[in-house]
Amino acid sequence: MASIPQLLMDEVQPALTTSGGKVTVVGVGQVGMACAFSLVTQHICSELALVDVAADKLRGEMMDLQHGLTFLRNVKIEANTDYSVSAGSRLCIVTAGARQREGESRLSLVQRNVDIFKGIIPNLVKYSPNCILLVVSNPVDILTYVAWKLSGLPKNRVIGSGTNLDSSRFRFHLSQKLNVAPSSCHGWIIGEHGDSSVPVWSGVNVAGVRLRDLNPLVGTPEDPDKYNEMHNDVVNSAYEIIKLKGYTSWAIGLSVSALVASILKNIRSCHAVSVAVQGYQDIDKDVFLSLPVVLGENGVTHIIKQTLTQAEIDQLKKSADTLWDVQAGIQF
Amino acid sequence: MASIPQLLMDEVQPALTTSGGKVTVVGVGQVGMACAFSLVTQHICSELALVDVAADKLRGEMMDLQHGLTFLRNVKIEANTDYSVSAGSRLCIVTAGARQREGESRLSLVQRNVDIFKGIIPNLVKYSPNCILLVVSNPVDILTYVAWKLSGLPKNRVIGSGTNLDSSRFRFHLSQKLNVAPSSCHGWIIGEHGDSSVPVWSGVNVAGVRLRDLNPLVGTPEDPDKYNEMHNDVVNSAYEIIKLKGYTSWAIGLSVSALVASILKNIRSCHAVSVAVQGYQDIDKDVFLSLPVVLGENGVTHIIKQTLTQAEIDQLKKSADTLWDVQAGIQF
Amino acid sequence: MASIPQLLMDEVQPALTTSGGKVTVVGVGQVGMACAFSLVTQHICSELALVDVAADKLRGEMMDLQHGLTFLRNVKIEANTDYSVSAGSRLCIVTAGARQREGESRLSLVQRNVDIFKGIIPNLVKYSPNCILLVVSNPVDILTYVAWKLSGLPKNRVIGSGTNLDSSRFRFHLSQKLNVAPSSCHGWIIGEHGDSSVPVWSGVNVAGVRLRDLNPLVGTPEDPDKYNEMHNDVVNSAYEIIKLKGYTSWAIGLSVSALVASILKNIRSCHAVSVAVQGYQDIDKDVFLSLPVVLGENGVTHIIKQTLTQAEIDQLKKSADTLWDVQAGIQF
Amino acid sequence: MASIPQLLMDEVQPALTTSGGKVTVVGVGQVGMACAFSLVTQHICSELALVDVAADKLRGEMMDLQHGLTFLRNVKIEANTDYSVSAGSRLCIVTAGARQREGESRLSLVQRNVDIFKGIIPNLVKYSPNCILLVVSNPVDILTYVAWKLSGLPKNRVIGSGTNLDSSRFRFHLSQKLNVAPSSCHGWIIGEHGDSSVPVWSGVNVAGVRLRDLNPLVGTPEDPDKYNEMHNDVVNSAYEIIKLKGYTSWAIGLSVSALVASILKNIRSCHAVSVAVQGYQDIDKDVFLSLPVVLGENGVTHIIKQTLTQAEIDQLKKSADTLWDVQAGIQF
Repeated sequence: MASIPQLLMDEVQPALTTSGGKVTVVGVGQVGMACAFSLVTQHICSELALVDVAADKLRGEMMDLQHGLTFLRNVKIEANTDYSVSAGSRLCIVTAGARQREGESRLSLVQRNVDIFKGIIPNLVKYSPNCILLVVSNPVDILTYVAWKLSGLPKNRVIGSGTNLDSSRFRFHLSQKLNVAPSSCHGWIIGEHGDSSVPVWSGVNVAGVRLRDLNPLVGTPEDPDKYNEMHNDVVNSAYEIIKLKGYTSWAIGLSVSALVASILKNIRSCHAVSVAVQGYQDIDKDVFLSLPVVLGENGVTHIIKQTLTQAEIDQLKKSADTLWDVQAGIQF
Repeated sequence: MASIPQLLMDEVQPALTTSGGKVTVVGVGQVGMACAFSLVTQHICSELALVDVAADKLRGEMMDLQHGLTFLRNVKIEANTDYSVSAGSRLCIVTAGARQREGESRLSLVQRNVDIFKGIIPNLVKYSPNCILLVVSNPVDILTYVAWKLSGLPKNRVIGSGTNLDSSRFRFHLSQKLNVAPSSCHGWIIGEHGDSSVPVWSGVNVAGVRLRDLNPLVGTPEDPDKYNEMHNDVVNSAYEIIKLKGYTSWAIGLSVSALVASILKNIRSCHAVSVAVQGYQDIDKDVFLSLPVVLGENGVTHIIKQTLTQAEIDQLKKSADTLWDVQAGIQF
Repeated sequence: MASIPQLLMDEVQPALTTSGGKVTVVGVGQVGMACAFSLVTQHICSELALVDVAADKLRGEMMDLQHGLTFLRNVKIEANTDYSVSAGSRLCIVTAGARQREGESRLSLVQRNVDIFKGIIPNLVKYSPNCILLVVSNPVDILTYVAWKLSGLPKNRVIGSGTNLDSSRFRFHLSQKLNVAPSSCHGWIIGEHGDSSVPVWSGVNVAGVRLRDLNPLVGTPEDPDKYNEMHNDVVNSAYEIIKLKGYTSWAIGLSVSALVASILKNIRSCHAVSVAVQGYQDIDKDVFLSLPVVLGENGVTHIIKQTLTQAEIDQLKKSADTLWDVQAGIQF
Repeated sequence: MASIPQLLMDEVQPALTTSGGKVTVVGVGQVGMACAFSLVTQHICSELALVDVAADKLRGEMMDLQHGLTFLRNVKIEANTDYSVSAGSRLCIVTAGARQREGESRLSLVQRNVDIFKGIIPNLVKYSPNCILLVVSNPVDILTYVAWKLSGLPKNRVIGSGTNLDSSRFRFHLSQKLNVAPSSCHGWIIGEHGDSSVPVWSGVNVAGVRLRDLNPLVGTPEDPDKYNEMHNDVVNSAYEIIKLKGYTSWAIGLSVSALVASILKNIRSCHAVSVAVQGYQDIDKDVFLSLPVVLGENGVTHIIKQTLTQAEIDQLKKSADTLWDVQAGIQF
């Protein structure tokens, strides 16, 4: 007897096994899955591949996402420990990586992650030679450099999630102070993702009104209203959330999905992401740091040249030197 | 002195001039623009080209759409009387066509539209040889056949908007009777778009409960509750709305954008659209009529074989014969 | 025999006949319907009432929207020439009004619209005493004042769509020059909607970089790159589009739906809309002009005090005086 | 010196501290947070309160959500161990509860959860006396009954997430077999959430074509194609995913957010949720079980009366008897 599919319908032509809006997420930990879930609920990709070494967890996450598809647009979701599942991706998000051990040096952590990336990046490029790489693993700036080195891709196709999240946290803190939506509070944090990031107070504005024109001390240590503490709050956010709930996930998932949307839909919006910065803001080292860029379907097309103070430039250069020193010690 | 763009940013690589989610709409009348606006507000395409012979109207509509982009995701919108603007489209929607003159025969109207399509279809295929054609112009079933003939494309890449709209109207009427959302009222209208369409009462259900299991007469002339009048209402809707407001636009725009989403996002949802039906439901003529199909990135992949009554099959065959007779008179 | 609804389901409690997210649109011309369609496709309201004096057109537009609901979330859509259909609206959008006759004075046009508004505003407030009024009809600034006078509502609940659209057009033109998404090109146009609007060049920025810091002449007549022409383009846009297509619709529809979303969802985002400005920017007249404000569920909660040049303030005051003079001649 | 907010803007009227689209989630474990994140990313609520006894985790989750708001519409997000934070909610989702201990009887687990619910439900009703309660905690059917008893709310305002998720899993499995989008594969699972749920094979259809009309054995043990195993797969899904990843989260989050959308937006769509079923399908016990219902702003308004086989009815009655026996042992 004919099968139900045969009885129900005739094939006019075979269904495609892969489609044009494919994204791969490597690493199905809390960060990877928050990225995946953000992409699916916001209909940003039409196909999603998950890759991880933990086969059980991987299969569990895939099934859990699949079971919700009735409530969304249909997305093809696959998962495998083998990178062949990622074939044909337009964009690959790397969230996998080792966490810092107690007392471990930064270089040691980086080297362990380089060894992990050696198993990831060439495989992604092998199966999706024209993809864009979006690195989320920490320390994100160095690992974006590492991903670029291992990938052989042009620099504009390798991006780190960088300070897009720091900027969002900053805008939320502004929003709380002013009781105005974060999307209407404009502020940028650039440089190294984490402790040595740089808040560009000169550009902070609401409706084009620069806070610094209202109070020239805003964001400085001399400001009696202590708005400069907002940057501390941003820097401490990750630590605090990790202390409170064990990890961060939702905000980085939304940050990453905004970047993916801007790229896949060729939106050409501005985001602070980690890019190759040699030659910008007096930086002479071949490192990746976050600057505002324009993102399109072919990755980073333009870097915005912000007017920075000498102190801000110095901080960027100091970060660049530190990263460069660490990079020098990496064994590829 | 350097220009603002030069001062503001450095080019890392040129921005793409075209992107992967391009759709063309031919004809910027009320129907074409409702399609275009539906696509843009629902973020279904990342690039939109408009084509029409009326250069002024075309430019006005383009500008009007562009001026709203701040409130949406950025979409590249272009318009031109020259088809080169459509180059690289994944899907082309044809809404252009002549309207019936008083006393004009159907064949005469079709022939005038064939002559118009001769100026449209080959140009679309020239600039987007791998596109999918979605015909909206009326009489849609014959003009989908005409578009297929003129295009040289395989049949699965040429689709007419067909009874997707009739089905939606039917579901709205069911919704009104039952006070249940149209998306939870399932019913299909197939066959020829317009007067001789066929409501498939046997499949009408809410939560899997077939109305015909509740009342075997439902949808028949014998039904005291006169649910069969819903089909008349559907058939008369277009006439009534045209009488009331001069044209129909919103519902066809939403109907078309749902089809485009299903195709571009490879959603694989079912829709009643006009497809080549020879060999289905005992139809032996090479005509296009609406049947439920599965839509994916490569167009129609499967045709659903509904279990129809002999009367329903006879109605389809009659429509097929009528269309075939008209098609026989067309001069290509 | 029991009816299908009785056979299909039991009532646990009566369905609500009205819901909490109701919006009324008065006037179903091209502007009103572009507003209505934008609201529905973007799922901004859960109930929509349409009011107009043209019963046929009204019914046609209602039916056409209803027939597309299968492709959207279900929205209750009603239409009537009687204002009782608007009862319980949280927000009422007024797009109705007379157009300028050849050779007609501004005051004469205003007076004719005041007479029309006398038939609209009290009826809206009668049936929705706690609503927010959003005036779109032109001349929008005076008619917002008129609506406030006729409504008896507090000033924060009466808003004109104002220069939210002009600002969007400005951002699109910036976007074209810079090849950056309009949502990343920040610029504000304030003051009177139309010819005498004021572009606030001091606040124009991308990623916090003020164009005026790159080129102090930007936006002035002395600028060799002639960015000041962008404002002319904005001012001329409406005229040009009306010349080209007969009316403007899409962009104003999107502009209005963004305002409605910010209000109904209590988003607290900033928009330039027409509000009571006495006491702001040295304006001493009781007029409505556009300034950036924060919008929430209770209407306008805060007005942003932009740092303007004396020339900009003078332009605002001049507009205020002109409006005041016209208002003085109105017979309520 | 004036503060930045004072310098930046003037207050026209105080911003609202609470808005009309407020939802509370009790329990910020994996299920509660997947619900919360689904609601926020899909813009279903405009205000979100989180409640849990674990103050640290609670604060961490709140901050993590808040930091992503820049990429979404602004939503007010608060969290507190005190239920006053939930005041004014239109809908409260309860995900808190104890998990089964090894060897623990069902009644013992239920009793422990009843004791937990005694601390939750009255507090929710105290602060939101007109809210709708949506119970997600397991065993969901009994706990929905418990929530109803403890709340004093009318039955139509107390709903369990029930088999809405089981139905979605079923539709995904159908989708995999047929290579058709889950949203186009219609099938309902009713009854007790979990092992003794009932797949209503008689209603399973694609485009109105009942699979049982294609193969009368489909879904029975005699079916050579073994489609009946799909139900086993659905039943086993939760167990398997818990084994693989430790818990289920994404699909239940999406299932719950679909229910919340249907209620808050008064969509009136059909969902299988746990409701008071005495008097339906021959059930004479006062228990809650899942049946297809119509959801609106006032909760459950109608229950769909599916045509079931005697075996299906017997299974429902058996579930009802079992639940009733457990309920009899509860100490309120």
